Amino acid sequence: MGAADRPRPCCPVTPLRVRVDALTPTILLGVREARHLQVLRLTPGDSLRVFDGQGSEAEATLTELTEVGAVLTLGAGVQATAETPQPVTLAIALLKGDKLSDVTRAATELGVARIQLLITRHADAREIGTQKLLRLRRVAEEASKQSRRAVTPEILEPMPLAEFAWSGTLFLAHPGSRATLAEHLNWQAPVTVLTGPEGGFSDPEVSQLQQRGAVLVTLGPRILRAETAPIALLGAIVATGV
Amino acid sequence: MGAADRPRPCCPVTPLRVRVDALTPTILLGVREARHLQVLRLTPGDSLRVFDGQGSEAEATLTELTEVGAVLTLGAGVQATAETPQPVTLAIALLKGDKLSDVTRAATELGVARIQLLITRHADAREIGTQKLLRLRRVAEEASKQSRRAVTPEILEPMPLAEFAWSGTLFLAHPGSRATLAEHLNWQAPVTVLTGPEGGFSDPEVSQLQQRGAVLVTLGPRILRAETAPIALLGAIVATGV
Repeated sequence: MGAADRPRPCCPVTPLRVRVDALTPTILLGVREARHLQVLRLTPGDSLRVFDGQGSEAEATLTELTEVGAVLTLGAGVQATAETPQPVTLAIALLKGDKLSDVTRAATELGVARIQLLITRHADAREIGTQKLLRLRRVAEEASKQSRRAVTPEILEPMPLAEFAWSGTLFLAHPGSRATLAEHLNWQAPVTVLTGPEGGFSDPEVSQLQQRGAVLVTLGPRILRAETAPIALLGAIVATGV
Repeated sequence: MGAADRPRPCCPVTPLRVRVDALTPTILLGVREARHLQVLRLTPGDSLRVFDGQGSEAEATLTELTEVGAVLTLGAGVQATAETPQPVTLAIALLKGDKLSDVTRAATELGVARIQLLITRHADAREIGTQKLLRLRRVAEEASKQSRRAVTPEILEPMPLAEFAWSGTLFLAHPGSRATLAEHLNWQAPVTVLTGPEGGFSDPEVSQLQQRGAVLVTLGPRILRAETAPIALLGAIVATGV
């Protein structure tokens, strides 16, 4: 068995990445992160990476580790290359149950910079509880670590669709549309992907979005669930290599 | 409020679709389907659609409905338009827990004709239980109904990757590849999308697939979970409008 054939475990190829508040010369970590480092058997002198969730990432050295905290010393900055050329926003209608968690997790892996929750005509919910919103933010943070991103997507509180303003191109998946995402995708400006609730958008909502410049694109002739459509559209974006 | 602004519930736009064994002139349904029709308050004379899961679909009329069964009379055949120009196969390594159910559901919505389970070097499991395989088949059948497809994808028992033969183009999502799916996608022949387990494919597996003609394509610079990659790739296919 050659070296190349050795089983590759999931994650240790790149150094441990730790989310921190800011990339200061000395970084203090609390009890939770310290426990995590102990579980991973790190000891003073070990290298890791720190990132601030805003696109900055750097090397760091563990200089102290106790039961109640840890101290890191900042090293050289690292080019964070996992971001799209322009920020991608997922604008999505409120969905029932835990569907938004699943979408948030996948959308984070697929590189979105921001998730804007929307209240639409047929949205499955009219509001989201604080606990649920916080949970979505935790899911985004966890998924950004796992997908080795230096940016954690913002999860923005729900607003009515009519008040949602975007810059750049907004793609709306619409059954029966013939335009494709690829033929309208360019990175001269930010990109927004808009998907609806289980019941879809109302006809007036679609008309108004069109009047405001939304590009209606196809996802083929089948009916997709509300939680599949955003992943399919974001998949089409990342499959272009960004 | 105009007619166009009335709330649109999820599904009643198209007639009820019932999966049947074959499109014979007279179709007998068992107790379970009969109950379902009763719950939906159908009565003799009502129209519905029947499909055989093999691509054939037709109109039908409910002619008898009792507690224990129902009789349908076949009507005109219907063009089933929800299928891709050539069959798409998802070939996927065995995954842990319920991940394969989630992938099966989304892949069915996204139009696959077949899901081939694979045993790979770092696959999260070496086999799949009968109950779990049957469950995947039920998930596929349910999802094909919900997405208004006339074809239920086949779910094929696991085979070793080395024995898996494909015709047409096989796309393998591979970190670091520069080729895109779109530039190699054509519908002159069947399409296969191959995705790995959480630990990825081994280097020898990738080399062997390349030697056998697999096209390595990008999904961007981020690390995707094993259950996100297939949906992203299939999303890229359906976003071309097929």
